[in-house]
Amino acid sequence: MPELNIPEVVAEVRAAFERYDRGLEENDVPVLDDSFWRDERTLRYGVAENLYGHAAIAAFRAGRSPTEHAARARRLENTVINTFGRDFAVANTEYVLLQSGQRGRQSQTWVRFAEGWKVVAAHVSIMQEKK
Amino acid sequence: MPELNIPEVVAEVRAAFERYDRGLEENDVPVLDDSFWRDERTLRYGVAENLYGHAAIAAFRAGRSPTEHAARARRLENTVINTFGRDFAVANTEYVLLQSGQRGRQSQTWVRFAEGWKVVAAHVSIMQEKK
Repeated sequence: MPELNIPEVVAEVRAAFERYDRGLEENDVPVLDDSFWRDERTLRYGVAENLYGHAAIAAFRAGRSPTEHAARARRLENTVINTFGRDFAVANTEYVLLQSGQRGRQSQTWVRFAEGWKVVAAHVSIMQEKK
Repeated sequence: MPELNIPEVVAEVRAAFERYDRGLEENDVPVLDDSFWRDERTLRYGVAENLYGHAAIAAFRAGRSPTEHAARARRLENTVINTFGRDFAVANTEYVLLQSGQRGRQSQTWVRFAEGWKVVAAHVSIMQEKK
């Protein structure tokens, strides 16, 4: 069984997670691109799109407008990072969009490669209202 | 760097994924509960709820009605499983709800424990329309 939440591994993943989050805040496309595994098997389900492969994800980042960026400003809540052994981690957070008040969720699976920690799969969504 | 997609590891994760999927089809709560890591750190973001810990996830499964179950019948599309080393995997799939035609996405991170492969984090959402 992999050792859970080794403190220095959690700290590494938290640093990578926070770097990515600052990349989102600043719309820093090189940081966003660098945070994801450069491989055709990387995938990202976004709020309104399903992207397969690092190239498709990078094209999506490059195509977002500054206006859209302002509408995406958010506050994180209930962020949880769990690590399994020294090379695998999940980072999950809820968020609130500051403009609309909508609640979203962001899930990332991180793997340590020779070049550092990278997201291999991500899922972002807006939570539906309870019926 | 972890070895990617070792065939027998992919086969194991696919079997666990398919068992879980049959559990959803049949609303087989013991199989659903057994598929998730029995730990308070397990989390599942559902379409309209955020669940923290195996107990909360199990309570949610137990509380779903058969009527709701019929409305959840779905067809999977573009299922992708990637494994990293022998103990870590991501399983992602799009789906179409047969009744409403809505498109959803389901993401799972699987870890191999002594008791077998278990989901440590999951995220299910309905994709928003492009604006």
